[in-house]
Amino acid sequence: MSEAFGDRLIGRVRALGHPLCVGLDPHLAKFPPLFRQGAMAPGAPETAEAVVSFCLAVLDRVAGRVAAVKPQSAFFEQLGPAGVAALGRVIAEARRRDLLVILDAKRGDIASTAEGYAAAYLAKDAPLRADALTVNPYLGLDTLEPFAAAAQESGAGLFVLVKTSNPGSADLQDLPAPDRPLYEHLAESLAPLSDRLTGGDTGWSSLGVVVGAPWPEPSQRIRQLLPRTPFLVPGYGAQGGGLTEAFAGFVPGPNNTREGGLINSSRAILFPAAANVSDTTTWERAIDTALTTTISKFKRAASEST
Amino acid sequence: MSEAFGDRLIGRVRALGHPLCVGLDPHLAKFPPLFRQGAMAPGAPETAEAVVSFCLAVLDRVAGRVAAVKPQSAFFEQLGPAGVAALGRVIAEARRRDLLVILDAKRGDIASTAEGYAAAYLAKDAPLRADALTVNPYLGLDTLEPFAAAAQESGAGLFVLVKTSNPGSADLQDLPAPDRPLYEHLAESLAPLSDRLTGGDTGWSSLGVVVGAPWPEPSQRIRQLLPRTPFLVPGYGAQGGGLTEAFAGFVPGPNNTREGGLINSSRAILFPAAANVSDTTTWERAIDTALTTTISKFKRAASEST
Repeated sequence: MSEAFGDRLIGRVRALGHPLCVGLDPHLAKFPPLFRQGAMAPGAPETAEAVVSFCLAVLDRVAGRVAAVKPQSAFFEQLGPAGVAALGRVIAEARRRDLLVILDAKRGDIASTAEGYAAAYLAKDAPLRADALTVNPYLGLDTLEPFAAAAQESGAGLFVLVKTSNPGSADLQDLPAPDRPLYEHLAESLAPLSDRLTGGDTGWSSLGVVVGAPWPEPSQRIRQLLPRTPFLVPGYGAQGGGLTEAFAGFVPGPNNTREGGLINSSRAILFPAAANVSDTTTWERAIDTALTTTISKFKRAASEST
Repeated sequence: MSEAFGDRLIGRVRALGHPLCVGLDPHLAKFPPLFRQGAMAPGAPETAEAVVSFCLAVLDRVAGRVAAVKPQSAFFEQLGPAGVAALGRVIAEARRRDLLVILDAKRGDIASTAEGYAAAYLAKDAPLRADALTVNPYLGLDTLEPFAAAAQESGAGLFVLVKTSNPGSADLQDLPAPDRPLYEHLAESLAPLSDRLTGGDTGWSSLGVVVGAPWPEPSQRIRQLLPRTPFLVPGYGAQGGGLTEAFAGFVPGPNNTREGGLINSSRAILFPAAANVSDTTTWERAIDTALTTTISKFKRAASEST
């Protein structure tokens, strides 16, 4: 099996039979009582420790059941340097549990600055080495190069924001540019880089794109332009995208299932109502149930013909 | 004097008579011998300490002579959690020296995630509280709201990327959308938010925009659309923008000088050839000379009529 990110990703999704990615968004306001420590405020020293305990307990539930987790950097950064240390521990522990880690940090900058971010998160010896990083393309294609070079070197991947899940994504991403939406123009211009980062057994690239669940038609158009570029699909559930919409950019794969990347779910797995408890057994059961329910739905959707 | 960022910024620029902002980009490869410690590699523990010593020595040289410094987050993040702690120290020490701190982190995300970044860098009790933050608008105007709300609450500012200094900025930012470049469309759509964040004595907003030095004509068009929105101008010098170009979006202010925000210079101040030495006195003199030379040029350019 190739060591390239695209192959590792699709290989795991195929083995599990579903594309669920669990978002690690440790909202302080939603924290289950079982893991609360002290004031649960950004400044409080125990908060980062509570976040680590919670995330590690979640990793124990999801290990072996999903291909990937997606820590959201902002929720760690708001805790300051201790939060970034917590993020480093969560990333390392997830990888130790054989989960792929998509670090959702939406970085983007020019030249040597982009190299700095790549050195932070994608290089083989990066202090917070993830399997893939989300990146923002607004600064231009030249600014993706340092990320792509680091990813190729280390076997990591990238997910470039193309059409995000929020309503305001229309403001710039949908602008006619000039004769089709900006996101289509961007998707087409990413094709050469996607091809360059393809080469392993599955035929899928290590360059991915972020395409929100609420937008099935844009998903299909982007898929036509980028046939073997994995999607990272946020916005399923909480942000109003249904499962049919979330799978809109997926294509037939082996074993009569559709494949095409990852579909993220955060709150439904991390904070189900039944997990708002203080005892370990009940909390574990609540997470397991939420996970089982979501995975069943995803498997069913993946096996429906398009 | 109003406590709003826009007023603090322009007030200081007026008092000093020039808009120089010193970029704190601690490139490991360019580190002067005086401050090197150990391997100067991202993983080495002494590296973050060397970065702090270097940045604090620079702050001592520039304090009282410039309005603002701009630490580049990537160069700190690449050192891992210790680097983020170093960034926190540099920000705090700069503010203690009465320098405005523009944190160049180019963050951007949706809803509660954007709130997390705002809590990290803009809130009154933020662990890495800066005076202003650079933000990326690709996700849409709704994603700027949490940043704007936090900035208003705490007296901080924002600089939204509009037209960046790199050649590849043309890829998306210059696309006809549909009848004028995307950056113009974006600038116009930022006008209401700029107005909302205006209100103090200078008439300048706490919402700023990033407009690269190499683009004088775009700068003038953006200025027309955003008459009282401070510019943060990168790309002067190293990236090929001259001083006339860098001032293109500036407008007549008091005392026969032009004003309009900040023009950044990093390498010319941090790493002049004469500072590549091991003794303190020579290093200090080299930085002072670089600073004096640049400030003189800036003052001259600011006093030339447009």
